[in-house]
Amino acid sequence: MTDRAVVLLSGGLDSATAAAVAARDGFETYGISFSYGQRHAAEIVAAGRVAAHLQMADHKIVPIDLRTFGGSALTADIDVPLDRATEDMAAGIPVTYVPARNTIFLSFALAWAEVLASSDIYIGVNALDYSGYPDCRPEYIESYQVMARLATKSGVEGATQLTIHAPLIALTKAEIITLGVELGVDFALTVSCYNADNLGAACGRCDSCTLRRKGFVEAGVGDPTLYATAS
Amino acid sequence: MTDRAVVLLSGGLDSATAAAVAARDGFETYGISFSYGQRHAAEIVAAGRVAAHLQMADHKIVPIDLRTFGGSALTADIDVPLDRATEDMAAGIPVTYVPARNTIFLSFALAWAEVLASSDIYIGVNALDYSGYPDCRPEYIESYQVMARLATKSGVEGATQLTIHAPLIALTKAEIITLGVELGVDFALTVSCYNADNLGAACGRCDSCTLRRKGFVEAGVGDPTLYATAS
Repeated sequence: MTDRAVVLLSGGLDSATAAAVAARDGFETYGISFSYGQRHAAEIVAAGRVAAHLQMADHKIVPIDLRTFGGSALTADIDVPLDRATEDMAAGIPVTYVPARNTIFLSFALAWAEVLASSDIYIGVNALDYSGYPDCRPEYIESYQVMARLATKSGVEGATQLTIHAPLIALTKAEIITLGVELGVDFALTVSCYNADNLGAACGRCDSCTLRRKGFVEAGVGDPTLYATAS
Repeated sequence: MTDRAVVLLSGGLDSATAAAVAARDGFETYGISFSYGQRHAAEIVAAGRVAAHLQMADHKIVPIDLRTFGGSALTADIDVPLDRATEDMAAGIPVTYVPARNTIFLSFALAWAEVLASSDIYIGVNALDYSGYPDCRPEYIESYQVMARLATKSGVEGATQLTIHAPLIALTKAEIITLGVELGVDFALTVSCYNADNLGAACGRCDSCTLRRKGFVEAGVGDPTLYATAS
């Protein structure tokens, strides 16, 4: 049997590339996405497109309600900042940070991996060009892996130890785009914008759009992003 | 302002005692429970009773769907084992294990703690009389704390470091009952049974009932559990 990997799939550029890396590494891929009351529901639709495009074995969309806690511009009634310079993004944690989001997402991926008898989880975090989120840092991912190995049956019964793969963690956005292109990812299917409209058109002005646009320029790759007319 | 603590509240005997310990430690308590497709929905009702009894500041019931993954007798169509001796429970991980359950629960508690500006989470796991779950072991809790400190804003911005309190982890069931009685917990409000009926009456035969009943006997405390007539 081909080994299975669970891949966190947000619908954005990074996770699509991480999924393509998992496939390149020889895994049968299982995508997991979350409907968490985020403003940009278009990303869920994009995740489904990416799962089909990459011929995943399965794709689950898990509803979870992070709005019940509030605390983020992505899930509460707080404005997403626009037109920030990338230097400013590096200073402090922005209001788009969702408390414990990657920890919650990885925990559901861990549950599914255990049921699938999979020992591999892929996540598309990167520590460069990353908008200052604490749960995108290498030391966070490493500590999650240590915890996950103790949390599960395999940690007790001595089967293959779980690995959290973060293949993009040391790459710039431009390098991620270059890698994705090499692996045949169609970035036109992806949505990164925090303010995307229902059709997935991007605002071009939020931190995520700014980082993405800059990445395409630096990679020397044509930007296939659908931008809303106003931007 | 009184410091706040988030307490995982299952509706059972252990988490009610852990909540009482948090209150004794001087915290304003915030209970969090999960509706996760478990067979024993009566435990959610019990959690609400315990939250009111302990005069918690707030109690949230978070719906999450663990049935989508399957893999456990508590969430899938697998029989819960009955009438097992406690020695047999110690041998291996039982079918009532829910993959990554405590990891998922703690991750939601972590999100809420961050929004509440709380640095303290209480969980009623114990490693003795514990039914063999990997995510009830001290080394698991310690590694979760390391991860959680790196996952959150406080880990980056240097505020008070998060602590995962597991005050029952080294206690026997009898010791937990004795502690709870000292702290004024009304165990008649709690439901531990995996097969509880809609009114919270216990089967008296699953692992959880067996451990609970034995605990009351060993503590020399009258067992206030409502048992279904048949048992």
